[in-house]
Amino acid sequence: MDALDRLIALALEEDLGAAGDVTTSALIPEDARGRAELLAKEDLVLSGLEAFARVFHHVDPDVVVRRLARAGDEIRAPKVIAELQGRLRSLLIAERTALNLIQRASGIATMARRAAEAVKGTRLKVLDTRKTPPGMRALAKQAVRDGGAHNHRFGLFDGVLIKDNHIAAVGGSVREALRRAKERAPRLVKIEIEVVTLDQLREVLDTGLADVVMLDNMDIATLKEAVRIADGRVVAEASGGVTLNSVAEIAATGVDYISSGALTHSAPNFDVALDIDL
Amino acid sequence: MDALDRLIALALEEDLGAAGDVTTSALIPEDARGRAELLAKEDLVLSGLEAFARVFHHVDPDVVVRRLARAGDEIRAPKVIAELQGRLRSLLIAERTALNLIQRASGIATMARRAAEAVKGTRLKVLDTRKTPPGMRALAKQAVRDGGAHNHRFGLFDGVLIKDNHIAAVGGSVREALRRAKERAPRLVKIEIEVVTLDQLREVLDTGLADVVMLDNMDIATLKEAVRIADGRVVAEASGGVTLNSVAEIAATGVDYISSGALTHSAPNFDVALDIDL
Amino acid sequence: MDALDRLIALALEEDLGAAGDVTTSALIPEDARGRAELLAKEDLVLSGLEAFARVFHHVDPDVVVRRLARAGDEIRAPKVIAELQGRLRSLLIAERTALNLIQRASGIATMARRAAEAVKGTRLKVLDTRKTPPGMRALAKQAVRDGGAHNHRFGLFDGVLIKDNHIAAVGGSVREALRRAKERAPRLVKIEIEVVTLDQLREVLDTGLADVVMLDNMDIATLKEAVRIADGRVVAEASGGVTLNSVAEIAATGVDYISSGALTHSAPNFDVALDIDL
Amino acid sequence: MDALDRLIALALEEDLGAAGDVTTSALIPEDARGRAELLAKEDLVLSGLEAFARVFHHVDPDVVVRRLARAGDEIRAPKVIAELQGRLRSLLIAERTALNLIQRASGIATMARRAAEAVKGTRLKVLDTRKTPPGMRALAKQAVRDGGAHNHRFGLFDGVLIKDNHIAAVGGSVREALRRAKERAPRLVKIEIEVVTLDQLREVLDTGLADVVMLDNMDIATLKEAVRIADGRVVAEASGGVTLNSVAEIAATGVDYISSGALTHSAPNFDVALDIDL
Amino acid sequence: MDALDRLIALALEEDLGAAGDVTTSALIPEDARGRAELLAKEDLVLSGLEAFARVFHHVDPDVVVRRLARAGDEIRAPKVIAELQGRLRSLLIAERTALNLIQRASGIATMARRAAEAVKGTRLKVLDTRKTPPGMRALAKQAVRDGGAHNHRFGLFDGVLIKDNHIAAVGGSVREALRRAKERAPRLVKIEIEVVTLDQLREVLDTGLADVVMLDNMDIATLKEAVRIADGRVVAEASGGVTLNSVAEIAATGVDYISSGALTHSAPNFDVALDIDL
Amino acid sequence: MDALDRLIALALEEDLGAAGDVTTSALIPEDARGRAELLAKEDLVLSGLEAFARVFHHVDPDVVVRRLARAGDEIRAPKVIAELQGRLRSLLIAERTALNLIQRASGIATMARRAAEAVKGTRLKVLDTRKTPPGMRALAKQAVRDGGAHNHRFGLFDGVLIKDNHIAAVGGSVREALRRAKERAPRLVKIEIEVVTLDQLREVLDTGLADVVMLDNMDIATLKEAVRIADGRVVAEASGGVTLNSVAEIAATGVDYISSGALTHSAPNFDVALDIDL
Repeated sequence: MDALDRLIALALEEDLGAAGDVTTSALIPEDARGRAELLAKEDLVLSGLEAFARVFHHVDPDVVVRRLARAGDEIRAPKVIAELQGRLRSLLIAERTALNLIQRASGIATMARRAAEAVKGTRLKVLDTRKTPPGMRALAKQAVRDGGAHNHRFGLFDGVLIKDNHIAAVGGSVREALRRAKERAPRLVKIEIEVVTLDQLREVLDTGLADVVMLDNMDIATLKEAVRIADGRVVAEASGGVTLNSVAEIAATGVDYISSGALTHSAPNFDVALDIDL
Repeated sequence: MDALDRLIALALEEDLGAAGDVTTSALIPEDARGRAELLAKEDLVLSGLEAFARVFHHVDPDVVVRRLARAGDEIRAPKVIAELQGRLRSLLIAERTALNLIQRASGIATMARRAAEAVKGTRLKVLDTRKTPPGMRALAKQAVRDGGAHNHRFGLFDGVLIKDNHIAAVGGSVREALRRAKERAPRLVKIEIEVVTLDQLREVLDTGLADVVMLDNMDIATLKEAVRIADGRVVAEASGGVTLNSVAEIAATGVDYISSGALTHSAPNFDVALDIDL
Repeated sequence: MDALDRLIALALEEDLGAAGDVTTSALIPEDARGRAELLAKEDLVLSGLEAFARVFHHVDPDVVVRRLARAGDEIRAPKVIAELQGRLRSLLIAERTALNLIQRASGIATMARRAAEAVKGTRLKVLDTRKTPPGMRALAKQAVRDGGAHNHRFGLFDGVLIKDNHIAAVGGSVREALRRAKERAPRLVKIEIEVVTLDQLREVLDTGLADVVMLDNMDIATLKEAVRIADGRVVAEASGGVTLNSVAEIAATGVDYISSGALTHSAPNFDVALDIDL
Repeated sequence: MDALDRLIALALEEDLGAAGDVTTSALIPEDARGRAELLAKEDLVLSGLEAFARVFHHVDPDVVVRRLARAGDEIRAPKVIAELQGRLRSLLIAERTALNLIQRASGIATMARRAAEAVKGTRLKVLDTRKTPPGMRALAKQAVRDGGAHNHRFGLFDGVLIKDNHIAAVGGSVREALRRAKERAPRLVKIEIEVVTLDQLREVLDTGLADVVMLDNMDIATLKEAVRIADGRVVAEASGGVTLNSVAEIAATGVDYISSGALTHSAPNFDVALDIDL
Repeated sequence: MDALDRLIALALEEDLGAAGDVTTSALIPEDARGRAELLAKEDLVLSGLEAFARVFHHVDPDVVVRRLARAGDEIRAPKVIAELQGRLRSLLIAERTALNLIQRASGIATMARRAAEAVKGTRLKVLDTRKTPPGMRALAKQAVRDGGAHNHRFGLFDGVLIKDNHIAAVGGSVREALRRAKERAPRLVKIEIEVVTLDQLREVLDTGLADVVMLDNMDIATLKEAVRIADGRVVAEASGGVTLNSVAEIAATGVDYISSGALTHSAPNFDVALDIDL
Repeated sequence: MDALDRLIALALEEDLGAAGDVTTSALIPEDARGRAELLAKEDLVLSGLEAFARVFHHVDPDVVVRRLARAGDEIRAPKVIAELQGRLRSLLIAERTALNLIQRASGIATMARRAAEAVKGTRLKVLDTRKTPPGMRALAKQAVRDGGAHNHRFGLFDGVLIKDNHIAAVGGSVREALRRAKERAPRLVKIEIEVVTLDQLREVLDTGLADVVMLDNMDIATLKEAVRIADGRVVAEASGGVTLNSVAEIAATGVDYISSGALTHSAPNFDVALDIDL
């Protein structure tokens, strides 16, 4: 069971408890079968359809899900995204849990698409962060890619990212922080370091030990100056205070990346519903 | 391990993978200790502080978390909500996962508080739904209560809620659906049924078998008429299309409850941060 | 894995340990196949056949189980209830664990049938309790229904049942206990309260807050008086000291339900055996 | 987590579901504390007190359980067996699950004691079987020992027991069955074989390969003859149709052991209750 | 999931972490399919092919593994042992974990074969111990049998083995240790006791309570004397300091068994590789 | 529970099965306490002491383990490495499983130390591989560091390593393989590619896309030439056919790293024993 399977198991357990779906048990005969349509009720970029299908298969491996659209598709509502067939009880029991996943994933993909479109034609790439709904890291990161934006680190294990707290912990020295990282970090991961001032940036460049520098919460003028100072010696990533409006302006500063937590932590659910036929 | 423990375990695993926090391992000595403050950076209603603390205890049972505010408190930013003390590595490793939980819970509580305030002075109560982030059902429902709104069913097991799909499945008869529910549902759970027309409402009232009726997607005028028809014989719950603006108008129709999915599925994360001292 | 799957896994583990079935491994070739009959050796009401089959499928998904009787059937011994086919090793390894489940379930169903028959023609319904063998709640509750009796709460989550300890805990006031339950219990669950005296019963009726009242350990005369006092304002459930003999007399008092723990906690195993052919 | 911990977790989950104890949550303040007495309400041989205590510690590690009696004690009712102290909510939530375990264990121990007393003064020893409630193997086997009877195999792994099905599977030859067992069974386990006729017994003795012989469903006269034939060359175990009445007569035949499934599969629960003080 | 499934799950998790195989994800299209050959690159006795195949099925149930050799076969390199077919990503992801298992199992089987050959023609049998790689007990014990050597106890549960620490714990008395074992050990397990001097051996023989005696770290002359003293009254097992060279000499002493930890704890991995075709 | 905890749980289960340590249960009183010394019986580099201690704490959290040496220490036998105190049963039950871990970890650390010493004074660093005992990845990688050698990738997730199979899968083009890796691999991981000929090396250098190149199975002369060609533009790692003897010669070629699978897959267990006092 991968992380998504475990999240689905957890979600089904919190919805079904020990006694199950008492409405469905009381009303629906065990052998009744049905069909259902998964319907987009607002415009969205599709993501999470595999997770949606997997919920039904957790409940009942015999439910058949026919996909009518693909991850990353721009869907114009109303549109049927998938058709389902199987035991009616299974369709009803899995419905809510499955929708909770696809609605959130599509919400993230849609926001990511809007952000990606805002920087189209520039060299700026939009990145996500680790601010993902607990248990949904892989699903949210996939949704970001489905939307056309890019992934930052997956977790704490596939990249060194030195933040202010780490620098303080080694006595405030950027050089010492980078030296330790270079010496002890896994051989094949790169080193990124967060700076909040141009002086810190210069100190980082002096060491020659950083692969990427995160320019945290700098205004447009400072970002421009930072890019000038860096002069291509490190990859430059802006972070903090990103909105769809500010993105174009940030692109003009010449930074390589802009990272945004809101992309995954505050995307609204998009409206997708299940219509059951008998 | 309850559901929250399992969600925390899952979230830590997706963040730490098999190799752990490579930055912290490289930079921070094993025996370094530190202090941290949990800081509200925008106004919010606090929720999820226990879950926040539990993440640290998963990582390291010896981290001490001192609470400086309580669930349901209106926090004015900037304000220190809690103080932490322990191994510096533990503080850094748990930080993001813990913040992801408290930011979301506080987001939900804050939205719930705004909704509860909008109906203050009326008899209308605001309810949540089962549209909660997967794995976070109990946390989200608690956040709704911390905000001052109310919980609908916890899951599929603690109440009968007959929806259009169920009615269709028994041949379209409201009466037959209610009859089966009455006969076969657990002894101590009540029966709620969704109606979309006033005729359906009348049919429900005729049977005398429903405890609560959900008036789905009705406009204000229809809701008023529904309340008049019901005449106190069932509890009346409006659902669909709720916004903070519409809530006062709905209160005036005389329905007992209004349920809102957005409360839990689309609350934004609120900004809470961890500042680490050495 | 639902609760039954986990119980089966646990039972197989305690029977097989880490080294497995040493007799079967030593004697039976890996590729030997066999057939077996599941034989009722005394009269019984059948229950647990699905659980029986599931044990074999845990051990070996390729074992075929053909059902020759259905849950709730009155079986006259000797009678073949099911036929099995598959790897001989699998049949031998799963046998005891599978029998332990069906023997107990059929024991409960048979006792439930006898109790249901004893109240036939009266309005009294026989209920089970939460006194079920650990891990077997759903199986035992199903056996009760297969026998023709009825289920009380599934667990602590699908109904409020206020007992003497709860009343004492709120200062001895029935009214206060019911008030809190009404205010804080989940919206769609009903409230039952246990009383031991007629005065307590009157106090409950005064509040108008209880849906069901449990009349605990009252003698026949007191039960009759309780029914007279309640006068249909609450559902009345007798509990305590039920035997097949006393049931008819209790029916005559006019109570709606009688609950019996012995139904599930002390039903003897009924004799069902597996005869293996080669 | 050993098997008992997993059974307790399973039992608590089926009782608490996802939403927990709604009565206790509604009525009892989070910080209320209480005391309770565990009271024997009928005469019994005590067993399962450790399991009882462990349930409370699963729910809340801070509940204190003071034992006032020991496993194997003959308890005269009414008698307080243990005192508990802790959060009132924890006491109420764990009560039923804990009682279900100790009632069953004490039921088994009491039946085992009666059986052990019936053979007192003879060399006959009473054995249990593998017919234990699923998930409760170790607890039931301990209860048998607490009662003063003895354990047969724990499971399929700690002894070879060749039954009719195994003999048939190797072509009907007792000799071949024993030969394979001798050659392939684990080095340090003994070999027992079931026989139903005296001829089979003689065949077993001829091989010299069996350590124990199970005399299945033989009448008293045949058992006597079997003992005479065996003449001490193997340990003799009678099985089938044991009652307290028949036990003394079986002892007189000279067999070494008598095994009884009813000891563990059909022992009734004995009445033990929790009285909560505030 | 048996122990091997859990070990495989653990091994895959430590190799894949939360983010998976980043090389394969980046380079190989999701729908690419491939073939592969499992190739022995040095002479070996084959073992662990089933475990090898199971790793692929954990990753992807649709990978087809065709076996071209059987457990226990002497393989002359270079030789293709199996052919695989399936999604190319699955082949690449499972490769290392699957090889780690089969290389180790074949290493153990090869060492066991060499040891078995060294005692061929004598009555001495070579035994393994409990010194197996953690989580691989069953796999290692099977490899020993595949090699032609024999298994000692599987674990602590299927035989009594009294060591010096146990004897010391009962006050240094061999007789007391054996008496307790006889009285309290499971009915169908045998008793083995370790002795380090001939006096201890005599004491053991005096009691008549041991089935097997382990002669620990005795030189050849002492072993011979021990066999003479035992005179067939117990099974004799030599242990300690076994090498392929010493085995023949030990066989000549007349002991029944020789046990060797190195067989399982220090067998080198044998070279088996996966060659992927497209 | 991290991976090591799960491996320990698995190892204890395979050793204890469902019935536990029957020798210890029979002989040792439940309340007996004891002391033990962990004794190095041959010279070794210590590793795995924490894992050793953790096994005892799994069995019994009250066992006290006092460390007398540290990871990485060169131990001269005989030397006491740790002292233990606690329930005698716990010491005996955990002994074998704990020793299996520390013996293997110390075996790896000792081999790693020997390899590290062989390259002392040169710039060559010795690396491990992913050929670690299943379930023991972190323990084995730590042992390598305790010995003074270095870690390659932890798993498939923290570095891109393009092997011959990957190159073949993209049509044989080194350039295409590197292009895809650059485009799609996680942002903060580096790219290593395996080459078997000097032509392939030149092709890699041409692209400018690789961070590290693995020179697979090249002889000393070819390695020298490869280093000359690479001329510092990529990090150079030799792999294949490493022995303690060849290491110095390889160092002289000027490569940066040499990786060795034998370090972790074929290190013998080193002799560490537990002596129990009463």
